[in-house]
Amino acid sequence: TDLAALAEHPHRRRNALSGEWVLVSPHRNQRPWQGQVEKHAQSHRPAYDPTCYLCPGNARAGGAENPTYTSTFVFDNDFAALRPGPAPDAEPPSDADLFVASPEPGRCRVICFSPRHDLTLPDMALPAIRGVVDTWAEQYALLGSDPAIGHVQIFENKGEIMGCSNPHPHGQIWAQASLPLHVAREHERQRAHHDRHGRTLLADYLAEELRRDERIVVANDAFVVVVPWWAVWPFETLVVARRPVAHLGELTDAERDGLADIVQRVTRRYDNLFDVSFPYSAGIHQAPTDGQAHPEWHLHLHFFPPLLRSATVRKFLVGYEMLGEPQRDLTAETAAARLRALPETPLADKAE
Amino acid sequence: TDLAALAEHPHRRRNALSGEWVLVSPHRNQRPWQGQVEKHAQSHRPAYDPTCYLCPGNARAGGAENPTYTSTFVFDNDFAALRPGPAPDAEPPSDADLFVASPEPGRCRVICFSPRHDLTLPDMALPAIRGVVDTWAEQYALLGSDPAIGHVQIFENKGEIMGCSNPHPHGQIWAQASLPLHVAREHERQRAHHDRHGRTLLADYLAEELRRDERIVVANDAFVVVVPWWAVWPFETLVVARRPVAHLGELTDAERDGLADIVQRVTRRYDNLFDVSFPYSAGIHQAPTDGQAHPEWHLHLHFFPPLLRSATVRKFLVGYEMLGEPQRDLTAETAAARLRALPETPLADKAE
Ligand SMILES: O=P(O)(O)O[C@H]1O[C@H](CO)[C@@H](O)[C@H](O)[C@H]1O
Ligand SMILES: O=P(O)(O)O[C@H]1O[C@H](CO)[C@@H](O)[C@H](O)[C@H]1O
Repeated sequence: TDLAALAEHPHRRRNALSGEWVLVSPHRNQRPWQGQVEKHAQSHRPAYDPTCYLCPGNARAGGAENPTYTSTFVFDNDFAALRPGPAPDAEPPSDADLFVASPEPGRCRVICFSPRHDLTLPDMALPAIRGVVDTWAEQYALLGSDPAIGHVQIFENKGEIMGCSNPHPHGQIWAQASLPLHVAREHERQRAHHDRHGRTLLADYLAEELRRDERIVVANDAFVVVVPWWAVWPFETLVVARRPVAHLGELTDAERDGLADIVQRVTRRYDNLFDVSFPYSAGIHQAPTDGQAHPEWHLHLHFFPPLLRSATVRKFLVGYEMLGEPQRDLTAETAAARLRALPETPLADKAE
Repeated sequence: TDLAALAEHPHRRRNALSGEWVLVSPHRNQRPWQGQVEKHAQSHRPAYDPTCYLCPGNARAGGAENPTYTSTFVFDNDFAALRPGPAPDAEPPSDADLFVASPEPGRCRVICFSPRHDLTLPDMALPAIRGVVDTWAEQYALLGSDPAIGHVQIFENKGEIMGCSNPHPHGQIWAQASLPLHVAREHERQRAHHDRHGRTLLADYLAEELRRDERIVVANDAFVVVVPWWAVWPFETLVVARRPVAHLGELTDAERDGLADIVQRVTRRYDNLFDVSFPYSAGIHQAPTDGQAHPEWHLHLHFFPPLLRSATVRKFLVGYEMLGEPQRDLTAETAAARLRALPETPLADKAE
C-alpha cells in the first residue's frame, strides 16, 4: 500500500477484526469548528468525597454500604441492564422473521479501581494497576464459570463526555448468555482466519504492524499498542497481547505486569495529548465463556477516545456516520505519530 | 410474541433491515442520573444573523458569497470529506487481506432548508417543507446521474449535541462511489427478502406493524411513522413509504406532499416530548444510484434522537454499546406510546 497516496485522498479502509469499513478523509481536520465545545474535565477532586456512592464506607443508591476497601472493590450494579432470567431461545431465528426477540439473562457489576476518589488509571502506581488487572482476570473467570454466562464484557467509560456518571475511578462488567453484536463479528472473522491459516488473525496482523512500524505507539515485552489500520475514533488504539492468548487467565505473572505497564503508558500518553484527563470508553475482548477451547481468540483491548483537536473539541459520529458509515478526519498514521511523540509523564507531575 | 413478557425482562431484538441486535433493558430508565447534563438548546435566534455563513447574502468560510436565496439553497461543502478522484478498486478485497484500503471519490453538499436563520423543519410551513422534499429529490437525481456516484446519502444533524456546528436550518448530502457500510447491510437484507418473497422487506414489515398497531406513532395516506421493533435510540423512528418505491423520484406529487406532512408531524411531536427543539440525526435511505433497477429497495427515513429523559439528559451509547452491542433503557412500545400521545402543536405557538 502507498501510504503517501492514502495521506492525500479520501479512501475507505476495512476493519480486519469486524469486517466493517471506515471512510478516511485525511485533510478534514483543518476545517474551522464552530460547534459544541465540551466542558473542561474537572481536575481537582478530593481523595475522599462523602457524597460519592463509590467511595469506601459510603452508602450506595440501592441502600447498601461500601466496605472500607483499600485496593479494588467489586459489587453488583444497583441498576443492572442485565439480570438472571430465562435462557435465550435455543433455535437460531430464521432470516425471514421480521420480529425476532429472545430473552437475555446476565449480570452487571461495578469495579472500583481504587479507594482514592481523585485518581484515574494513569495516575495510579503500577502495583495498584496490577491489582486492577488481577481483578479483571478474577471476574472473567468467576462470572464465566456460570453455565448461564457465555460472554463477559469488561469496560470503562471515563469522563462525563463518555456518559460516565461518577468520576470515582471505576469500570463495569456486563456478563451475559449470548455473544453481543460486535464480539460476534470479531468472533466470526477470527475463526475464519484461524481455520484458514492455523494462526490467530491478530498474531498475523501484529507481526505485520511490527514489520511496517507505521502505526505502533508503544510496546513492552508482553503487549503492543497500535493505532489500528481501521481506527474510527481520532486517537483510537488497539492493545494486543504479543502471545496469542485467548483470555486474561492465560497470561503469565510477568505478562500481567506487562498489561499493567502498557495500560499506564498508553493512558498517560492520552493525558499528555491535550493536557487533560483524557476521556474514553475502553474494554477487553476475550474468548467466549462457553466452556469450549478458543484457539482462534486473541486477547486485546480497545480504547475509543472522542477528542479530536483539543481538550474541548471532539469528533461526532453522527448523521453520515449513523446512516452511512464511520468517518474519520485524519489518517491512522498521523494519529500514531502524534501519540508516539508524547511523553509518559503523569499529568499530576506536570501540574506542579 | 408476548409483549407483556418483553416489557418485564431484559431481552435482545434483531433489526430486520440490518441484521444487527440490540439489548433491551425495559426498566433501566428508572435509575438515578448523576452524569453529564446537556445545555438547553438556544431558543431565541434572529431571523437573520450577519455572522452566519449560511444566511442569504453572507460570506462563507471558503470565501464565496451566498445568493439572497428565498427558499432552499444548495452548495458544495467548503470542507468536503469526499471529493472527485480515482475510482475504488475494481476487485473486491480478499477476506485474508488484513490491510485493505480503496480510493473513494465523491462529493459533499449542503442544503439550506430556509433563508430564515431562526426556523427548524417543524417550525416551517408545509409548502416550504415540500420545497425541501423537492430539493432532496432533485439532488438525489442530479448527483446520482453521475456515473462515478453509486450512492447518495441525504441527512441532517440537528442540535449542537448532534455535532451540528450551525443552527441555521440545513442538511447535508454525501454522495460517493460505494455503498457505505450501513446501507450495504440494509441492501443485502432487502435483496434477500425480495428474492425470497417477491415483495420488499419493508412492505411486509409495514403491513405487520399496521396489523399489530403497537408501535405506530402517526400516519397519513403516503407514509407511516413507527418506532421500529429494533429501535436503538430512546425515541428512534422509522418513516416508511406506504408504496414500495425505491427512491424519492418515484413519489407522486401527492406523496411528496405526504412526506412533507409526515416530516412536519413527527418533528413537531419530537419538539413536544420535552418542550425543546428536539436534536437528532436523520436521513433518507434510497436505492443505490448504480443505474440498475432496485425493486428490492424501499424508501425510508431514519430519525436517531439522543434525548432519553428530559431536554438535558441524553442516552450515551458508549462502553458496552461500543464493545458489546447497542443497548436501550425502555421498550420500543413504551416509546411509541409516549410519542403517539403527544400533540402536533408547533413549539413557537406554545411559547406564546
Ligand atoms: O459537516 P459538519 O456538520 O461540520 O460535521 C458534522 O457532521 C459530519 C457528518 O455526519 C460529521 O462527520 C462531523 O463529525 C460532525 O461534526
Ligand atoms: O452504567 P452507567 O455508567 O451509569 O451508564 C453508562 O454506561 C452504560 C454502559 O456503556 C450505558 O448504557 C449508559 O448509557 C451510560 O450512561
